[in-house]
Amino acid sequence: MARLSERVRDLHGSPVRAMLAAAQSPNMISFAGGLPASDSFEDVDLPPPPKSLLQYGPSEGEPALRAAVAAELSRIGLECPPERILILSGSQQGIDLAAKLHIDPGTMVGVESPTYLAALQAFRFFGARCRVVHRNNPAHNWSAKARPALTYVNPTFQNPTGYCWSAAERDALAAACDAHDVTLFEDDPYRALAYDPCERTPICARVKRAPWIYQGSFSKTLAPGLRVGFLAASSDLFPHLLNLKQAADLHTNRLGQWYALRSLQDPKRGERMERLVSRYRHRRDAFAASLTRHLGDVADWAVPAGGLFFWVTLNARIDMTLLLDRARKAGVLFTPGEHFLPYPSDDLPSLRLNFSHAGELEADRGLEILGRLIREAMENRKRTPRYEMAAAPH
Amino acid sequence: MARLSERVRDLHGSPVRAMLAAAQSPNMISFAGGLPASDSFEDVDLPPPPKSLLQYGPSEGEPALRAAVAAELSRIGLECPPERILILSGSQQGIDLAAKLHIDPGTMVGVESPTYLAALQAFRFFGARCRVVHRNNPAHNWSAKARPALTYVNPTFQNPTGYCWSAAERDALAAACDAHDVTLFEDDPYRALAYDPCERTPICARVKRAPWIYQGSFSKTLAPGLRVGFLAASSDLFPHLLNLKQAADLHTNRLGQWYALRSLQDPKRGERMERLVSRYRHRRDAFAASLTRHLGDVADWAVPAGGLFFWVTLNARIDMTLLLDRARKAGVLFTPGEHFLPYPSDDLPSLRLNFSHAGELEADRGLEILGRLIREAMENRKRTPRYEMAAAPH
Repeated sequence: MARLSERVRDLHGSPVRAMLAAAQSPNMISFAGGLPASDSFEDVDLPPPPKSLLQYGPSEGEPALRAAVAAELSRIGLECPPERILILSGSQQGIDLAAKLHIDPGTMVGVESPTYLAALQAFRFFGARCRVVHRNNPAHNWSAKARPALTYVNPTFQNPTGYCWSAAERDALAAACDAHDVTLFEDDPYRALAYDPCERTPICARVKRAPWIYQGSFSKTLAPGLRVGFLAASSDLFPHLLNLKQAADLHTNRLGQWYALRSLQDPKRGERMERLVSRYRHRRDAFAASLTRHLGDVADWAVPAGGLFFWVTLNARIDMTLLLDRARKAGVLFTPGEHFLPYPSDDLPSLRLNFSHAGELEADRGLEILGRLIREAMENRKRTPRYEMAAAPH
Repeated sequence: MARLSERVRDLHGSPVRAMLAAAQSPNMISFAGGLPASDSFEDVDLPPPPKSLLQYGPSEGEPALRAAVAAELSRIGLECPPERILILSGSQQGIDLAAKLHIDPGTMVGVESPTYLAALQAFRFFGARCRVVHRNNPAHNWSAKARPALTYVNPTFQNPTGYCWSAAERDALAAACDAHDVTLFEDDPYRALAYDPCERTPICARVKRAPWIYQGSFSKTLAPGLRVGFLAASSDLFPHLLNLKQAADLHTNRLGQWYALRSLQDPKRGERMERLVSRYRHRRDAFAASLTRHLGDVADWAVPAGGLFFWVTLNARIDMTLLLDRARKAGVLFTPGEHFLPYPSDDLPSLRLNFSHAGELEADRGLEILGRLIREAMENRKRTPRYEMAAAPH
């Protein structure tokens, strides 16, 4: 019997990974992952890469890519010199590095509820006690003795809710982090996928004194298979993050970095992004119409102003494990909302539904099936009150 | 002031990273890194990759690459089904994952002395107490109460010494891990770079009951810039390693995996490897001759049967920090041996010298400079006994 570390005793496979594996089966309609539309890759150019990329590269990332990212951040209102840009092997790596840097067993970490499930998983793995940060009063309950070391937020088209924080909410969190010396960790992979106007200036740009980490991704706007993301950080944190990056994988693959730089320098990039945003806006609107058609009587949701997800809350409690099982057998996948919660909750159950991957007809068919299964479960529940009692504690 | 985790309090930048950065300056003769010869990339083919690689991929790695790696391992005597092959973002990532899986603060970890410095760094970062494993008696001092959770070895052309374990030494470690239920972690990036015949069958292939992790790399035989490595593991450890991989970076970049698979399937791969091994054997022999010429009177070494390094031990104590500083100013880099030691030592100082990267004339010039500086330091030491006393505690 292998003697394993304390931290892996509670380690379970991510529901997302299991879901993505199931999503590989042909004919499966998947609302489960956060996959870009496959046809969004058609206009990505992949010329043969130069051989100079085959040698080891710097842990910080390619200098030209760091400079291009710094220029890009400046355009969105976040000033950070290229020397404090770290290229990541996808932004999931940034979560691992930030967790390693801040979290000991018992360390308090602020999170939204719901929040990105793979961040929750990484924070818990390092022993974090997660505490909910409320947008309307972020420093509620913070004191010199009890305040998070790190607060993680995904304020622009959040995964899973699609919510975009207002300017006032952004200002309030920045001020709270400044006042209580809490590291602000802002995860911002969806910002470019904006379908309606809304405030998007990073919260990190509003911070005056607190340590901060801002991260972004090429996975949602270019290609996840490259595994390239980036972070910018305050000067007190950056050298540690660089050392941790080097210990994690020496440096990010140079081919992906080269293609990412090419995409940033492409004069047609603006046009390409407009096409992508327009295609996803169209999918979102069609998805909203299908939702109304098929789930209008059993659920509520807000139409997201950007990003890749609808957060759909049922208007009665049903057994979500059973629903997921039946949906999978009927060829439809979704992610149950409970995976995104830092604590078990008595609230009505939710589903996270991705609208970028499935085509419109396919999505409509999938939602029709889902609506039927939800309605059946609700009717069964009315007929068998004992089932309701058994299920209620969940 | 950011509140950081306990584990980063002692985190220092790797000397290797700092060294690789210094090695970028033009005209620097670097014996410091473990870089492949740049001209070894000339016969690597880089056709444009297919667009299907742009989407997310499986955390385990590409199925075809996992199958090809499993077939390769079978050829070298290690039977492991493709289902227990995990593709890594370079084998440095395997060290991070194995450390996460086994090490809590205070966990005992067995290591060679000297050993790979970035492994030491990762193990210490998670709080390991490192204990030396002796090849001639690996279970020495192991008991039910005090034995490592994990023993890390690099038995084939070790970094830094170049040593290759004999069959008897391999059998003894496998038996010790079996008897004491210690996870064997075998790191094997250099095995294909064999210049003289010697035993290379993995120690993991000799294990009967103990948990094990075997890892290899494409960085030394194909291209480090791809950042692709792999591990195979016993069935009790594999599911945990997969979950940890997914939390670390979701999956390894798919472009590098595609080029790695192509290289394994290339019918000319055998020829290419023969050319590479022959070129490095030639460099090793020329390096040995230059060492004899320029350091023969001040140092000892064994000619390595494979790998990328000479481990050169001086025959008198000198200030190695001063030597490194003077060498750098004179345009020569090396890695001081102390970075590879799990404990401070009173032994005579050593240098790790890489022979694969610099050309032969360049290497000869570099060793001439190094020999002169070492001789000067030894003579200064004789003339100033006070300096010797001050330096002795180091």
